[in-house]
Amino acid sequence: MILILKSDVTEQQVAHVIERVESMGLRAHLSRGSQRTIVGIIGEEDKTRETPLRAIPGVADVIPVLPPYKLASREAHPQESVVEVAGVKVGGGFLAMIAGPCSVEEPERMDRIAKAVRAAGANIFRGGAFKPRTSPYAFQGLGLEGLKILQTVGRKYGMPVVTEVTDPRVVETVAEYADMLQIGARNMQNFVLLTEVGKTHKPVLLKRGMSATVNDWLMSAEYVLSEGNSSVVLCERGVKGFDNATRNLFDVASVALVKRLSHLPVIVDPSHATGRPDLIPACSLAGLAVGADGVHIEVHDCPEEAKSDGPQALLPTDYDALMQRMRQLANLMEKTISQS
Amino acid sequence: MILILKSDVTEQQVAHVIERVESMGLRAHLSRGSQRTIVGIIGEEDKTRETPLRAIPGVADVIPVLPPYKLASREAHPQESVVEVAGVKVGGGFLAMIAGPCSVEEPERMDRIAKAVRAAGANIFRGGAFKPRTSPYAFQGLGLEGLKILQTVGRKYGMPVVTEVTDPRVVETVAEYADMLQIGARNMQNFVLLTEVGKTHKPVLLKRGMSATVNDWLMSAEYVLSEGNSSVVLCERGVKGFDNATRNLFDVASVALVKRLSHLPVIVDPSHATGRPDLIPACSLAGLAVGADGVHIEVHDCPEEAKSDGPQALLPTDYDALMQRMRQLANLMEKTISQS
Amino acid sequence: MILILKSDVTEQQVAHVIERVESMGLRAHLSRGSQRTIVGIIGEEDKTRETPLRAIPGVADVIPVLPPYKLASREAHPQESVVEVAGVKVGGGFLAMIAGPCSVEEPERMDRIAKAVRAAGANIFRGGAFKPRTSPYAFQGLGLEGLKILQTVGRKYGMPVVTEVTDPRVVETVAEYADMLQIGARNMQNFVLLTEVGKTHKPVLLKRGMSATVNDWLMSAEYVLSEGNSSVVLCERGVKGFDNATRNLFDVASVALVKRLSHLPVIVDPSHATGRPDLIPACSLAGLAVGADGVHIEVHDCPEEAKSDGPQALLPTDYDALMQRMRQLANLMEKTISQS
Amino acid sequence: MILILKSDVTEQQVAHVIERVESMGLRAHLSRGSQRTIVGIIGEEDKTRETPLRAIPGVADVIPVLPPYKLASREAHPQESVVEVAGVKVGGGFLAMIAGPCSVEEPERMDRIAKAVRAAGANIFRGGAFKPRTSPYAFQGLGLEGLKILQTVGRKYGMPVVTEVTDPRVVETVAEYADMLQIGARNMQNFVLLTEVGKTHKPVLLKRGMSATVNDWLMSAEYVLSEGNSSVVLCERGVKGFDNATRNLFDVASVALVKRLSHLPVIVDPSHATGRPDLIPACSLAGLAVGADGVHIEVHDCPEEAKSDGPQALLPTDYDALMQRMRQLANLMEKTISQS
Repeated sequence: MILILKSDVTEQQVAHVIERVESMGLRAHLSRGSQRTIVGIIGEEDKTRETPLRAIPGVADVIPVLPPYKLASREAHPQESVVEVAGVKVGGGFLAMIAGPCSVEEPERMDRIAKAVRAAGANIFRGGAFKPRTSPYAFQGLGLEGLKILQTVGRKYGMPVVTEVTDPRVVETVAEYADMLQIGARNMQNFVLLTEVGKTHKPVLLKRGMSATVNDWLMSAEYVLSEGNSSVVLCERGVKGFDNATRNLFDVASVALVKRLSHLPVIVDPSHATGRPDLIPACSLAGLAVGADGVHIEVHDCPEEAKSDGPQALLPTDYDALMQRMRQLANLMEKTISQS
Repeated sequence: MILILKSDVTEQQVAHVIERVESMGLRAHLSRGSQRTIVGIIGEEDKTRETPLRAIPGVADVIPVLPPYKLASREAHPQESVVEVAGVKVGGGFLAMIAGPCSVEEPERMDRIAKAVRAAGANIFRGGAFKPRTSPYAFQGLGLEGLKILQTVGRKYGMPVVTEVTDPRVVETVAEYADMLQIGARNMQNFVLLTEVGKTHKPVLLKRGMSATVNDWLMSAEYVLSEGNSSVVLCERGVKGFDNATRNLFDVASVALVKRLSHLPVIVDPSHATGRPDLIPACSLAGLAVGADGVHIEVHDCPEEAKSDGPQALLPTDYDALMQRMRQLANLMEKTISQS
Repeated sequence: MILILKSDVTEQQVAHVIERVESMGLRAHLSRGSQRTIVGIIGEEDKTRETPLRAIPGVADVIPVLPPYKLASREAHPQESVVEVAGVKVGGGFLAMIAGPCSVEEPERMDRIAKAVRAAGANIFRGGAFKPRTSPYAFQGLGLEGLKILQTVGRKYGMPVVTEVTDPRVVETVAEYADMLQIGARNMQNFVLLTEVGKTHKPVLLKRGMSATVNDWLMSAEYVLSEGNSSVVLCERGVKGFDNATRNLFDVASVALVKRLSHLPVIVDPSHATGRPDLIPACSLAGLAVGADGVHIEVHDCPEEAKSDGPQALLPTDYDALMQRMRQLANLMEKTISQS
Repeated sequence: MILILKSDVTEQQVAHVIERVESMGLRAHLSRGSQRTIVGIIGEEDKTRETPLRAIPGVADVIPVLPPYKLASREAHPQESVVEVAGVKVGGGFLAMIAGPCSVEEPERMDRIAKAVRAAGANIFRGGAFKPRTSPYAFQGLGLEGLKILQTVGRKYGMPVVTEVTDPRVVETVAEYADMLQIGARNMQNFVLLTEVGKTHKPVLLKRGMSATVNDWLMSAEYVLSEGNSSVVLCERGVKGFDNATRNLFDVASVALVKRLSHLPVIVDPSHATGRPDLIPACSLAGLAVGADGVHIEVHDCPEEAKSDGPQALLPTDYDALMQRMRQLANLMEKTISQS
């Protein structure tokens, strides 16, 4: 931690700053420049995080030196983590190819879609049973019934299943049926929920919030990790941008950045990032090329009948064509699509 | 709802679009331009919201005509709502002057701060007992103990109290102690939580999410209203911006806009919007001048010892000076600060 | 300037860093923490700005301590500047009330609008003769003819005139007719143009770029000031946001911030900031309340016939009603509307 | 163009709207819904662009149906354009591999860098002679001398050269020495400059502005095209984001989108988009995978001595390693790197 003192700081204030730092069991290293005085704090930076250093009189700015996450950091864990989702490996050279409809729908449709994406090469099946919807009047998901359908269909086609959980009170129930728990973008900083999924020891798919910095995102992963659950897969799904030509702004560079800062696997979700099926294939390839550990795509066999997010779903045939191109690129990148 | 068809749409596709619209019990009004065909949908727009119209082959774009919220809309409820918080009126010419520390701290300090803000003219006292913190290692609040301290101190000084709730499982407990329930920015789209506070019939202070559009924000209010709880006060607290010179970007125009679109009271929170005590007085006055129904300010008697967000707190003396200026402006605007 | 070194920096790299710093005639102050080594650079920070310190091997990050602008800074010039526009004072307690149509139009209309805004209390008249338009097919302004009309009408009603200049080749010509030169948002970082207007010694109205940080904005002012032209008035006109409910996001807090960082006057432009006439009155008042040194508003007597930006113009009667409210607020703030 | 009328529109206002539309030689098609009346305008949409339709009393909103650009649109020109830069083909399957230092520096260094990037496979050499710098005190480029060095070195190694032009008064001079004229991000809406480069008939490299929508960007291309210069190559270089972990936010999806909307080639610039050399390789590959027609990378043989932007430059050896990976990916994508 570095403190930059104000240009008009008094000697008394400087003395008070040093005293405060030392009262935390740390050392203060003073550096008087020609125009500003700077205080380097020596010792465990964590001790200072809880203290509002910037509120001490005479302090102009506080510059952290270390990242605030530990368990999620690459420094603490130099090797890439491999997360296992009911036998499917993700990270460390293994790709998660997650596909399925936005919402779980009727069993026959789910069966058709699962069969198609499995044949195309998907290794994890997705579908929402509890849907976080902007409108209280919109379809909110099939609930428990949906979980059962999802599990049954996933097992039939040999794919572990991932589904979103939104309520801390049903985390346990969802964990009974699902192989991986998704935390959606709107809940990325729902710390109560993060804590609950952290207790389950089920793999967690942690979507990035719409305006979360990379630092915020890794801190949310830290919540899950700090509960003892080390199976976290991050997912970039687009952030808020100023141009409504696409639904969100696909932040592909964040994937490369997270891979440097953290050991956790990171996948991309071009369906939500773009909101446009015509851009999904190109953005899926971009995601793999940048180094993502997988691609999450919404697939529906009749988008105009989808219960939610139909306009951004790929048809099974388009998904199949895309998978062929993704496999070629995966080969070039020396990545493997593991099957359960 | 208006559908803009693709330039290369076929007659068969046009016929299918019309059929789909009519199958919803609506009428389609075709308008063939020189370069594009447009379909106006006549009837209740709500019927179309659930259907992914943009996924119908031949449809290029879908333009909604009506806002998706109803209970929150000014059209449905032309007069400004007045929300009562244990006797303190908010909206319709009455200002909420909410003040207090970020977190509830020890009783003596709470007493000192409450006494000071009450003397300065605040009419609602605030303090967080359950804190949503970016870091799992940060102070998470005093919990139930904090609620009790807050209630005791508020009663002593004749101020109703507002505190944040983050967990649907403790909504009832929080509602026992607090006069108003705050939904924080990070939980603005925690629909599970919104539904729970909607069931309590306690007034709700709904902070705007960091990257929520005005439409998203009003839809979250709609969640609470649709559960039968009509006492919602909105709070603008800054949105994400590209310039880190301030913590957030204070969207003062959104207050004027919401007051046109909705009948709900809207207050401002310059503490979170700017993150800098030196900008809080100017931004508080701007908030009142733009038409806000109140100002929410963090006050602490020793910011460098605050358990959270110290650097953005005002000292009680500064709050007092600001309240004097706010009262003058309130007079000019013909607004009243109601007391319980 | 502070250098944060990498966690795996070698002693050889540390020595090289120190050597580089000393080769610039500066001193390096080393501070070895438990996890990172930090180098404080002592001496004139400017000497380091030109050197890509972050590219030196072993350097992780570079933290500037001082702002990069000098002539524009409040530190260098503690008192508020008062800019004179042909006799009208702006800043230091004097308000610029700038009004007029987006584009200069035919003389009769200009006369009508000027007469009306003058009667309402405006003290500077505006109108664009050279229009920067997003589309090459849009009306580009009346050019020289427009300048003449603007000057004639302004003189008739005793108001100095301001108009935008977009081309370095016509700066001199525009300066012959106009009393103040406007640099538009799209040209805020057109450094060639800034240099030319800096040479004229005419007052400059420098609009903030749509995604300019406060630092970028003040650096653009520095371009004008460094050419010897000290008459710069800044203008906040909204920045890019993610919510298209308003045309731009009115950054009212930036006005308060700039007034702390700089001695230059700052005004607001709610017409461009919101793009909606129904929000202009509330945002104008917010601008004055936050401490702005004036308000720039587009006024047109028949918006539906305006050559440009009609939908965001106020009618003269609405401007008059707003001016009455602004005068009341100006009195409360102890500000004066100077007349030429 | 579609007009959505206000809910309280009067019959008289409806009649006036229709009259206005018909006075432009267009037809108005009325569609009365249960809650709103909509007016479809039939005829050439361009006729309406100049008229402020939203300012007509009773009009709530105006929805354009067609894109405002024509020459740049894919509809008008379904086949991908191939731009020739002194013999090097860009677009339609041909990749521009542009490399070189940020600024033109001394001849020996330029020679070394050019030799290295040529050997690595670059086909266009870059270097800035006129630098747009945020600070008036920063290095502004070698000017004419720099142009000569750039041309000489480019010719020696058989690479056409591209350099930025910032001043309409020197466009002709720059065009004498350079094979391609770059319009920088800060000048993307400098319409005076766009018009001048449009007159030269030299290929133009048009960088996207930091907060330009895709629509704004294509409209700026339209300025160049409408002057008769059809050789425009677009370049995505990152947009403003809220997370300062990277310099800008690399909008990779915009490349895929522009390729659908326009026939013009689009390349990516990961140097400016990320500002971090460690992310450039991954983002370059992402750019190619998404379908970009080339990659623009800053290369310097001693970044710590670079006159500008050193910290984001790649070393020649790193560029060489990246080019090998880019060639593999180009093969997979069936793209060719043309040489002059």
